Amino acid sequence: MAEDLSGYAGSALEALRGAGARPGDRIRIRRDGEAYEGVLIPRPGFGDPESIIVKLPNGYNIGIRAKPGIEVEVLERGERPGYRRAPIPPLGEGLPRIALLGTGGTIASRVDYRTGAVEPALSAEDLYAAVPELSGIARVEADVLFSEFSENLEARHWREMAIGAAKRLESGAEGVVIAHGTDTMGYSAAALSFALRGLPAPVILVGAQRSSDRPSSDAATNLIGAAIFASRGPFAEVAVAMHEGVSDGPIAAHRGTRVRKCHTSRRDAFKSINSQPLARCDVRSGRIEMLVEDYRRRGEGSLEVRPDFDERALLLKYYPSMDPSIVDWAVDEGYRGIVFEGTGLGHVSKKFSGPIRRAVEEGVVVCMASQCLWGRVNMNVYSTGRDLLAAGAIPLGDMLPETALVKLMWALGQTGDPGEVRAIMAANLAGEMSGRTLYWG
Amino acid sequence: MAEDLSGYAGSALEALRGAGARPGDRIRIRRDGEAYEGVLIPRPGFGDPESIIVKLPNGYNIGIRAKPGIEVEVLERGERPGYRRAPIPPLGEGLPRIALLGTGGTIASRVDYRTGAVEPALSAEDLYAAVPELSGIARVEADVLFSEFSENLEARHWREMAIGAAKRLESGAEGVVIAHGTDTMGYSAAALSFALRGLPAPVILVGAQRSSDRPSSDAATNLIGAAIFASRGPFAEVAVAMHEGVSDGPIAAHRGTRVRKCHTSRRDAFKSINSQPLARCDVRSGRIEMLVEDYRRRGEGSLEVRPDFDERALLLKYYPSMDPSIVDWAVDEGYRGIVFEGTGLGHVSKKFSGPIRRAVEEGVVVCMASQCLWGRVNMNVYSTGRDLLAAGAIPLGDMLPETALVKLMWALGQTGDPGEVRAIMAANLAGEMSGRTLYWG
Repeated sequence: MAEDLSGYAGSALEALRGAGARPGDRIRIRRDGEAYEGVLIPRPGFGDPESIIVKLPNGYNIGIRAKPGIEVEVLERGERPGYRRAPIPPLGEGLPRIALLGTGGTIASRVDYRTGAVEPALSAEDLYAAVPELSGIARVEADVLFSEFSENLEARHWREMAIGAAKRLESGAEGVVIAHGTDTMGYSAAALSFALRGLPAPVILVGAQRSSDRPSSDAATNLIGAAIFASRGPFAEVAVAMHEGVSDGPIAAHRGTRVRKCHTSRRDAFKSINSQPLARCDVRSGRIEMLVEDYRRRGEGSLEVRPDFDERALLLKYYPSMDPSIVDWAVDEGYRGIVFEGTGLGHVSKKFSGPIRRAVEEGVVVCMASQCLWGRVNMNVYSTGRDLLAAGAIPLGDMLPETALVKLMWALGQTGDPGEVRAIMAANLAGEMSGRTLYWG
Repeated sequence: MAEDLSGYAGSALEALRGAGARPGDRIRIRRDGEAYEGVLIPRPGFGDPESIIVKLPNGYNIGIRAKPGIEVEVLERGERPGYRRAPIPPLGEGLPRIALLGTGGTIASRVDYRTGAVEPALSAEDLYAAVPELSGIARVEADVLFSEFSENLEARHWREMAIGAAKRLESGAEGVVIAHGTDTMGYSAAALSFALRGLPAPVILVGAQRSSDRPSSDAATNLIGAAIFASRGPFAEVAVAMHEGVSDGPIAAHRGTRVRKCHTSRRDAFKSINSQPLARCDVRSGRIEMLVEDYRRRGEGSLEVRPDFDERALLLKYYPSMDPSIVDWAVDEGYRGIVFEGTGLGHVSKKFSGPIRRAVEEGVVVCMASQCLWGRVNMNVYSTGRDLLAAGAIPLGDMLPETALVKLMWALGQTGDPGEVRAIMAANLAGEMSGRTLYWG
């Protein structure tokens, strides 16, 4: 029994042992005159070891902190909860064909009750099996590209995703869904936006903030939304599909170059910055509502994959007392480009003018975005900005710094000529930058 | 005349020359069947040189783009607009005494019509003269500490501000207002929050998103709000006073450790992250409304200034394909601390575990905040986070990465013992971190 209760400690462990309770049992807990009934859940390795976790009849888990006087009673013996493979539902005939590519992350992971941590576990096939609603939306062809938490992803994974998505579209898929960890999903979405030129159909990245075997998981609804966008969305762009709000409401599709993870844990963590989301959809009715007018239409253009990225680009967030010698180090180290997250309209200390000038002279492409995130850089307003422009820094308008870094890696992967890289950075290729607005008024 | 019209070009210059118009003249412009009347403004060096700028009777400036067929007519000769020193109003008797310290920035700057750029120009004395309403709120004693755009500020300026504010409070001021450039005002506010221990009265930083000689400037209302908070606010904390919304509504006071500039140009650019603002005030009635309950009360404690910061701290924002050798470089370069802006709940690639472990072994303090900005790091959920914790990284809860960097510089300035620095980083000293919430549910 002791093994079953591992993770629990102190008065929680004592109360559970006293009652002979085992994970999976339906139990009643009395504390402070209140009673809670539910299924005892194995204690995860994180959180308070003196909180007893029960799954309530409504499907939610709550933690009840044990304290002197707490009473636990076993109502019914149950089977220890664990992960089970669900049967694959039959594929619908006559439905649009989409590809589902697994890459890892929470959406394809589960809590390991042994270690208490969340580990990548589900294959794309498993995911599909776990969300039977998909069989009514599209004929899904699932594949695992790789299985990695998204914080470990690199430019070579962007390459693999771009080539993988293109291959599926070329062989007739009407859209692609990529299951991805949320941590770097914004970066991958930007990377695919640049790598997949002339896209004829939607490529939708989707993740989950809670793993799919937990009752409050957003995995299933996000995935259903992604499948709706991929199979029937009128836009042919790379987008991220996640909950628009905290409730069980619509799923938003955010343009790949404009999206950012803005909360560590909320299901509506992903936001479009300096633009509206592309679209939203209702997962029950399947209805898609476009929120912008200037989007790339499905079926237009012919696909060209440009999956090369050069990783010798550095993102530097400026802060007071930052030592400018980091720029010299980057030049000496062989970096070919630097994106600054400057302050305000696009500023760094005047001490950086010299090192930036030297970097530009040595062929390093130096760009300026803003750590404000919202708004646009305008380096013509203050003398500091004018000096930086004179030193050769490229202002990036309202482009997100994260998107700017990815775009710079991509531009450096396309050409060895710094002049061409500069021209690529200053142009709007995938909705990453909007037309100049006059700073005035 | 040509000199007066410098900055204008093309058909704008042609139309103005044709009419014999000079800056300061009241003119009428006809274009596309519409007429605009106002005072011709010297063309700033930025923006579209073919747009004619006129100040409308309502005080706003508009740009009218010249095109073929545009007509300009001089209605009345006027004086070229320029900056004039306003007379200082008499000081109110019996009002609370506050100190106003000038440091530079837009709030103390004006557009230089010669170069077209905004330059630091007004002294704190000038500012006070320019906002006569202040004389009804407090007896203001104005001083200039230094005059610098905030992107050039460093830890030594934080030191100077802390000592300057403490000196005024010790000599009887009932509050301090610091006029500051907006770019790094959040960093300075955090720095003063740590440097001024046992603060007995409010220290309010205030800035402007538009310089004070421009009609849409927010300088005057922000300054009035700051003076109200400094003279009568019930809280004894370091705060930033700026417009709460885009309209001419209330001024918010944001806690110094929780505030961030979140837009490049809007007047409501400053936001409290992971907390409510401390308070808001109505500049007309002078009424202050507290928005939180857990604030430090005015008059409590005795002031202790700890103005030492050690600049050997590095802020690194993580991104995919980031080369971990930057950590080794920082250790070799003599950095004593690193704040990572990790992804999601506080992650970086597994490739960083080795370099982080080495850094910690060599006495470098490594902390983890989240680039999401909203939410809190929780490194117990995923195996990546657990590995980083094992390597010695300190999780910073819901602390802003910018505040974390400033706090690390301050902690390094207080002690040479990495163990003590780690303890300082993990404690909540100035509202920078809120109590742990269980990641569950």
